[in-house]
Amino acid sequence: MNQPPQGLPHIVVLGAGFGGLMFAKDFPSHLAKVTVVDRQNHHVFQPLLYQVATAGLAAPDIAQPIRSILRDKPNLTVLMAGVRRIDLAARRIELDHGSLDFDYLVIALGGQTSYFGHDEWEWFAPGLKTLDDAVRLRRNMLLAYERAEMETDPKKREELMTSVVVGGGPTGVELAGSFAELARTVLYRDFDHIDPRQARILLVEGAPRVLGTFPADLSESALRQLRKLGVEVRLNTKVTAIREHEVELDGVPLRAGNIVWAAGVGASSVTRSLGVDTDRAGRIKVRPDLSVPGHPKVFAVGDLAILTDAKGQVVPGVAQGAMQGGAFVAKLIAHDLRVGARRPEDRPAFAYWDKGNMATIGRSKAIAQIGRLHFSGLAAWVMWLALHIVFLVGLRNRVSVFVNWIHSYFTYKRGARIIMNAETISRK
Amino acid sequence: MNQPPQGLPHIVVLGAGFGGLMFAKDFPSHLAKVTVVDRQNHHVFQPLLYQVATAGLAAPDIAQPIRSILRDKPNLTVLMAGVRRIDLAARRIELDHGSLDFDYLVIALGGQTSYFGHDEWEWFAPGLKTLDDAVRLRRNMLLAYERAEMETDPKKREELMTSVVVGGGPTGVELAGSFAELARTVLYRDFDHIDPRQARILLVEGAPRVLGTFPADLSESALRQLRKLGVEVRLNTKVTAIREHEVELDGVPLRAGNIVWAAGVGASSVTRSLGVDTDRAGRIKVRPDLSVPGHPKVFAVGDLAILTDAKGQVVPGVAQGAMQGGAFVAKLIAHDLRVGARRPEDRPAFAYWDKGNMATIGRSKAIAQIGRLHFSGLAAWVMWLALHIVFLVGLRNRVSVFVNWIHSYFTYKRGARIIMNAETISRK
Repeated sequence: MNQPPQGLPHIVVLGAGFGGLMFAKDFPSHLAKVTVVDRQNHHVFQPLLYQVATAGLAAPDIAQPIRSILRDKPNLTVLMAGVRRIDLAARRIELDHGSLDFDYLVIALGGQTSYFGHDEWEWFAPGLKTLDDAVRLRRNMLLAYERAEMETDPKKREELMTSVVVGGGPTGVELAGSFAELARTVLYRDFDHIDPRQARILLVEGAPRVLGTFPADLSESALRQLRKLGVEVRLNTKVTAIREHEVELDGVPLRAGNIVWAAGVGASSVTRSLGVDTDRAGRIKVRPDLSVPGHPKVFAVGDLAILTDAKGQVVPGVAQGAMQGGAFVAKLIAHDLRVGARRPEDRPAFAYWDKGNMATIGRSKAIAQIGRLHFSGLAAWVMWLALHIVFLVGLRNRVSVFVNWIHSYFTYKRGARIIMNAETISRK
Repeated sequence: MNQPPQGLPHIVVLGAGFGGLMFAKDFPSHLAKVTVVDRQNHHVFQPLLYQVATAGLAAPDIAQPIRSILRDKPNLTVLMAGVRRIDLAARRIELDHGSLDFDYLVIALGGQTSYFGHDEWEWFAPGLKTLDDAVRLRRNMLLAYERAEMETDPKKREELMTSVVVGGGPTGVELAGSFAELARTVLYRDFDHIDPRQARILLVEGAPRVLGTFPADLSESALRQLRKLGVEVRLNTKVTAIREHEVELDGVPLRAGNIVWAAGVGASSVTRSLGVDTDRAGRIKVRPDLSVPGHPKVFAVGDLAILTDAKGQVVPGVAQGAMQGGAFVAKLIAHDLRVGARRPEDRPAFAYWDKGNMATIGRSKAIAQIGRLHFSGLAAWVMWLALHIVFLVGLRNRVSVFVNWIHSYFTYKRGARIIMNAETISRK
């Protein structure tokens, strides 16, 4: 493995999601050697992942090679490698191949789908964290309709045309809304033996409302908008088991051709081996300066860190939280290197700036909260569209997504209804 | 399986490539029930497949759901299924699940990569026939550079940065040119420890010239243009063995991080079980009316048929040949159904209209032949771009490809440099 030359300190950044990437972009890289490690070669714009899963966008539309984003930063190296182990005492990262020594470490590996101890459910109800996941969901969903078209038994046909989305957070709501819209406005013209408008889309949530992190009136509005799209929303309902093409809701089995898990996100499993204090979801309880307790030169940002910030608010596990954390740590380490190292208790405390929160449900359907202002319906949807185009990384991606959205809006088509790897890894 | 109602004859079309799709579009479908069967849910615009393999385009940019293309045809059903066996005597097709009886049959299953009896080479030197193939080539190629970046042994690094393309036909020339351009103009800015401009790209051809189906002066021009891009072209060179990361050229082993097979295309293997006369590549020797000898209601079009046509020219295995064949058979069956069945010898004979032939090598580099006119360089390249945009199926695809090409042209970037499935099915 290539080690940085003597002289400059070495900063290793694990993960090039929103947190790691923002650190790498903001850090003045003449001050140190920086190595960014990610097991993928690309950064994914996670907020649009559900559109790849529901055939609205192609995978490369929402991804950008990490090397390409960071190509102009001097002293910065990108490595495509998986992280095996972090040895905080020896200040060393073990990778799939080789290892890296660090002076400073920024852990930004994000979250992973959590099945609350039921990892065996993954095969029957995949989650949505990566582009590969998204292409898999798209394949499962489109294949279910293809099979329904060939099925002659009306009961089995109905089962194949049933989709269940588990979890009423933003991802679950977006997936369920988009599945419903796809069936009712896009697919219905394409089949001869089935009517996709009759497809059942269920959204299952254990709590009494969807989008629990939003104000109650917006949750209510989202629920109404979902129902308008024909999504059956089951609140206060627990998933008690998942088997092949079957989910058990409060003990009652339901057959479904397509089951998606959008219920649980835990921290990357690497946190558990660090020997530091974590919450039940595996998130590192960081200090107010985002450093890991006992390790002043090690920081954690994004979905694998948990903190009640200087304003007394729990920093939410959203893109904004990770990005602000990455930028904060970049400034903090730069100050350490320019002016001299400070003890964690002498450093400023991170304060999350809540710029607002939004979720989309379907065409002209969304909710948004900006400070005390609450929006829903068309206004929220237009805001959502504009913001997601602006924040998408890469000019080509922006143009491509924009063209796709315009095209879908006017034609009621979706451009990425392509089943990939149908033969090699399709499920029964 | 759903069978058509009594009354109308049933036409089964196997394959929705250029030939099958053109038949389905052209056939007046009020005359019969038509069932189109393909193992994919999408039609692929094959001439641009190499651009997906070399990270210029996303897979959905060059594909369109078959259902969506044919949605407005009455009496026409699309089935996503693999063909197991064709029983010409019983007039029955066995599918993966179920079977179909036919009155008329159009076999348009196209070709498949042929390793001339060395099927064991496939794993080490994949071919390029499907979107999944293209995404696999892209992954192999990009991963080789990622590994070279991490490699400290200079000799191994050089090996990883060597690509070998076997076969100097259009696909091989396009791939080699595009690989070279990617390395020299796109990737070189992205890496710290390797210089992709030093990458070796070899194109290996057994014959004395590349693009052997073109006139000699255009082959010469293509060779010069390839060499200008830095492709090492080895003519009169035979591949004697392929192993993991190693190819033997006339018995001399050469290590390479990325090996691609673009040398052989044979007919779909289904032809061998038909009990009809085929050539060595498995192509059905059809009658002048494109019917299969002895089976006047069974036709074969495209890459799995071979015919010297009414003008005395061998119909080439290109998109135009398949499309004209599909349109010809559509007209012929329609006439049979309207006016009454004719004996094959009383039917008109197919005549291929050679509209010209072109191949692209890289930016401003191409060759084209239209009748007696020969073009090369910029003029041929602009013609190539225009024609491929026009013939691409689907407005969204056209706009998306156009945007991608404009963007690449001005920025020297490629938008689809995304490694998918790196963990699950990547090779060592």
